[in-house]
Amino acid sequence: MAKVADKPFFPKPFLSFLVLSIIFGFGITLSEAGFPKIKHYKWDVEYMFWSPDCVENIVMGINGEFPGPTIRANAGDIVVVELTNKLHTEGVVIHWHGILQRGTPWADGTASISQCAINPGETFTYRFVVDKAGTYFYHGHLGMQRSAGLYGSLIVDPPEGRSEPFHYDEEINLLLSDWWHQSVHKQEVGLSSKPMRWIGEPQSILINGKGQFDCSIAAKYNQGLKQCELSGKEKCAPFILHVQPKKTYRIRIASTTALASLNFAIGNHELLVVEADGNYVQPFVTSDIDIYSGESYSVLITTDQNPLENYWVSIGVRARLPKTPPGLTLLNYLPNSASKLPISPPPETPHWEDFDRSKNFTFRIFAAMGSPKPPVRYNRRLFLLNTQNRINGFMKWAINNVSLALPPTPYLAAMKMRLNTAFNQNPPPETFPLNYDINNPPPNPETTTGNGVYKFNMGETVDVILQNANMLNPNMSEIHPWHLHGHDFWVLGYGEGKFYAPEDEKKLNLKNPPLRNTVVIFPYGWTAIRFVADNPGVWAFHCHIEPHLHMGMGVVFAEGVHMVGMIPPKALACGSTALVKNYPRLP
Amino acid sequence: MAKVADKPFFPKPFLSFLVLSIIFGFGITLSEAGFPKIKHYKWDVEYMFWSPDCVENIVMGINGEFPGPTIRANAGDIVVVELTNKLHTEGVVIHWHGILQRGTPWADGTASISQCAINPGETFTYRFVVDKAGTYFYHGHLGMQRSAGLYGSLIVDPPEGRSEPFHYDEEINLLLSDWWHQSVHKQEVGLSSKPMRWIGEPQSILINGKGQFDCSIAAKYNQGLKQCELSGKEKCAPFILHVQPKKTYRIRIASTTALASLNFAIGNHELLVVEADGNYVQPFVTSDIDIYSGESYSVLITTDQNPLENYWVSIGVRARLPKTPPGLTLLNYLPNSASKLPISPPPETPHWEDFDRSKNFTFRIFAAMGSPKPPVRYNRRLFLLNTQNRINGFMKWAINNVSLALPPTPYLAAMKMRLNTAFNQNPPPETFPLNYDINNPPPNPETTTGNGVYKFNMGETVDVILQNANMLNPNMSEIHPWHLHGHDFWVLGYGEGKFYAPEDEKKLNLKNPPLRNTVVIFPYGWTAIRFVADNPGVWAFHCHIEPHLHMGMGVVFAEGVHMVGMIPPKALACGSTALVKNYPRLP
Repeated sequence: MAKVADKPFFPKPFLSFLVLSIIFGFGITLSEAGFPKIKHYKWDVEYMFWSPDCVENIVMGINGEFPGPTIRANAGDIVVVELTNKLHTEGVVIHWHGILQRGTPWADGTASISQCAINPGETFTYRFVVDKAGTYFYHGHLGMQRSAGLYGSLIVDPPEGRSEPFHYDEEINLLLSDWWHQSVHKQEVGLSSKPMRWIGEPQSILINGKGQFDCSIAAKYNQGLKQCELSGKEKCAPFILHVQPKKTYRIRIASTTALASLNFAIGNHELLVVEADGNYVQPFVTSDIDIYSGESYSVLITTDQNPLENYWVSIGVRARLPKTPPGLTLLNYLPNSASKLPISPPPETPHWEDFDRSKNFTFRIFAAMGSPKPPVRYNRRLFLLNTQNRINGFMKWAINNVSLALPPTPYLAAMKMRLNTAFNQNPPPETFPLNYDINNPPPNPETTTGNGVYKFNMGETVDVILQNANMLNPNMSEIHPWHLHGHDFWVLGYGEGKFYAPEDEKKLNLKNPPLRNTVVIFPYGWTAIRFVADNPGVWAFHCHIEPHLHMGMGVVFAEGVHMVGMIPPKALACGSTALVKNYPRLP
Repeated sequence: MAKVADKPFFPKPFLSFLVLSIIFGFGITLSEAGFPKIKHYKWDVEYMFWSPDCVENIVMGINGEFPGPTIRANAGDIVVVELTNKLHTEGVVIHWHGILQRGTPWADGTASISQCAINPGETFTYRFVVDKAGTYFYHGHLGMQRSAGLYGSLIVDPPEGRSEPFHYDEEINLLLSDWWHQSVHKQEVGLSSKPMRWIGEPQSILINGKGQFDCSIAAKYNQGLKQCELSGKEKCAPFILHVQPKKTYRIRIASTTALASLNFAIGNHELLVVEADGNYVQPFVTSDIDIYSGESYSVLITTDQNPLENYWVSIGVRARLPKTPPGLTLLNYLPNSASKLPISPPPETPHWEDFDRSKNFTFRIFAAMGSPKPPVRYNRRLFLLNTQNRINGFMKWAINNVSLALPPTPYLAAMKMRLNTAFNQNPPPETFPLNYDINNPPPNPETTTGNGVYKFNMGETVDVILQNANMLNPNMSEIHPWHLHGHDFWVLGYGEGKFYAPEDEKKLNLKNPPLRNTVVIFPYGWTAIRFVADNPGVWAFHCHIEPHLHMGMGVVFAEGVHMVGMIPPKALACGSTALVKNYPRLP
């Protein structure tokens, strides 16, 4: 229904795109994949009544589904999504999280950055290549529409005829999210109010869009909640992981939470981590994984436990005082009934404040052998200080004392068309004062909004040192998962306190740093990443916590915009770009 | 603050507009008013926390106010509103209800009709002449944003130096509305769901944005509700009408309800009706007035009652089984304390089903002497049948079996630019089958959506016979207040049953029919109106009940679009119009 056709040929308009892409050197992996297939989807986005956690609410769904339909393709395939906005008053865009959008920066799905939001009643066609195998997802990227439920999975298999570098019999896909009962519109108003009203902790953790709010499927271990009475057909009935004994399963786990950092564990089963954010990692065994918003992992499990029992899958909250019960479901060893509950309690989520444990896990992630290595030297280095601030009593987050306020005209078109009034032409500061004390609240918390862009020379190697700091209140510093659009980056290292180049530089891992698209900064710590600015376009880099981004916690990167091909006119139907005369439009 | 300046001169851009207007013959009443003043406002639209009826919610406010600021101008003045959309994800427009927009049809503020919705972060400047004195208001006209609280008053005084044709000492302005606790977004989803979920009756009636939900200021007459304990400073404290004894007050009353038909009465005081919808009427005395959504009245009262007492002002629901307590406030004879409650109960709202009483009131409204008379003959006559219908199980309202579904590209620009694919070029049917039985449910309730336009020759006289009918369920027919944009019309008459030309024609009033912009059709009845299609533009004509319009209860009229001047480019930044090459844009 949703998928219209798998067409193993190039339609004409796309041929010219391909030719352009080849001329410009944007790698479409033809060589690997032979002829790419076209995966064609037609989607309608609309609100609908739904009970994600057994409490009825409205969610932003796609084609009547929540989460949206799963996209599945082979690396090198072309994904085409004709997205129609059936909302009544809101614009919409969809970001394809982890897809690099080489040659198609206008398809990155970021309102105000890569395109105009799609207006109610209008259709925009996303068309892009899925470069490499991996576990990805998609989500809204306007206001807080991700929090409203606009997300789904995007799974890329290796090119046809190729296999993954590890063996498994079957796979199971889990998309994790958090859910509030208060409407996203109210949440947005609260965040923009003076004094700010914080959204609070989520009511529920959802596994593939399913959670249980006022009951538990493990009530006897969760005092205060009654046992859920679910037939399995309810929208909130848990997504059961049905497995056969004595097999190896790949479990794909992606987190599109608005806020929660999660921990994932399966009772009695070890996890062999093999993939992170669409990149293979050096396999390692762990009892549980931490997963931050914007990240994805693949783990292998072997169903070698007592086949007469079922086992808990438990997803708890980390890094914030958890008021949210863990998301629970079952690893159901067939042919056992899925209603047979495990004999022992669900795995306990590690203590929320045990950051050492989180770091231990994170520090074990290295690139798989044969992965691309980072350039040895950087050409440019940014130091980005993360601070919580105020502007006239409104609470904000700022980077180097600039809180991002997105302009109405999208950057990509504005830069290509040289609309110099569309945003501040002065780039934001590349660093922060040397003597800034990250261990105390900002001495002058007042900040300013800005919309300048960090511009890179095409092909240069960029290092970013993300520097965490104390928040407005003393003795508080939070986790922030930073996500980069249009690139994977190498995670060169993490450290405590303020990055001190002479010493910390030496500790950076240039040997086997993992490639990621999302990386966390720990409280009071720094994280160093490196990437090559080789993807013409304009790219968001931001904290993936939805309310933090909403409060300004992001920056905008750009490179090689002069090399960008013709932006589809429909991506320009707003702001100053809609008013420009000399751009190809309808004949 | 909101009002920037009263400038008694023409800025340069406006001069050319004026010249154009004069060339095209659009009447700016220079002769009457001398030099028009410019009333300049800068408005930000945003959601904010508010307690309209003592229950906190979010409302769509303007510059931190709810209802929005009152515009006050003299006839002939130019109103300029620079509207900035500070919503996060929603577009916005504002319609200036009752303002004719001669020469400025792009400023009528109807999304999909006169302009593109203003995107988040963008500013659109409304600039129009307020033609004639009267009691008007403004409101959102995208989705159900009027229900969300986007409205305010627009009061036009006679040209400077001229006075009204009746005397009064002071005036008081009342804007009436109804209020739901469920978010408008949920309401919209409910209306578009299968099966439909009706919004139900409002929780509260608001007077100038103030009502009381779970208490009453007249509790002793309203069993079940406790007495409100309000200091007067609360956002929901009643708007008190402070008056001096022995004076004459003009009370302006406008209704922007989403649903409710209202009845307005003041204990012990008769009302002298002098104005309806910005047109003078033959004055008549009444104990109370019915007021439908979209209507406005001015009544004169004389404060000749016992000056030691205060008196109730009561606003109750009519024409639907009222589950909503009346909106109440006080006529406070100074220097009495406003906390002194009247000695007798509030005036009782007439029984909701007593339509004869409503008709008696309505049939007493005639044009004041000296008002413009209608042309004696019509050139064109439309018969518009109002039916409740279904489309694949979704509930709709339809006109001549077409349920209006607005296109993403605004009609005005689409027609001017001849974008023939933007909407259906075939006009909808001008009549309905002669044998249609209005007293029974539609024999085939299945209908279709459409977006065709009724096109009139410039200057022709159009009659519309609005024909009410039975709804989907037997023995049900509802009131619908129809509002026409861009014109006043003469109300030639009302009748029971199906309009039968040979007989009913004779009963039409061509002598002193009132000019209005909104008129009601009674259950199972018809209403005949006449207007001259002499205002170049595209104009909505629709049921002013917000959910009914949302479900398709409207039509689109157009005339003289070839005579329309240059549409401001910012009104075109969406849909197909944004893609057109040959239209003036930025240099």
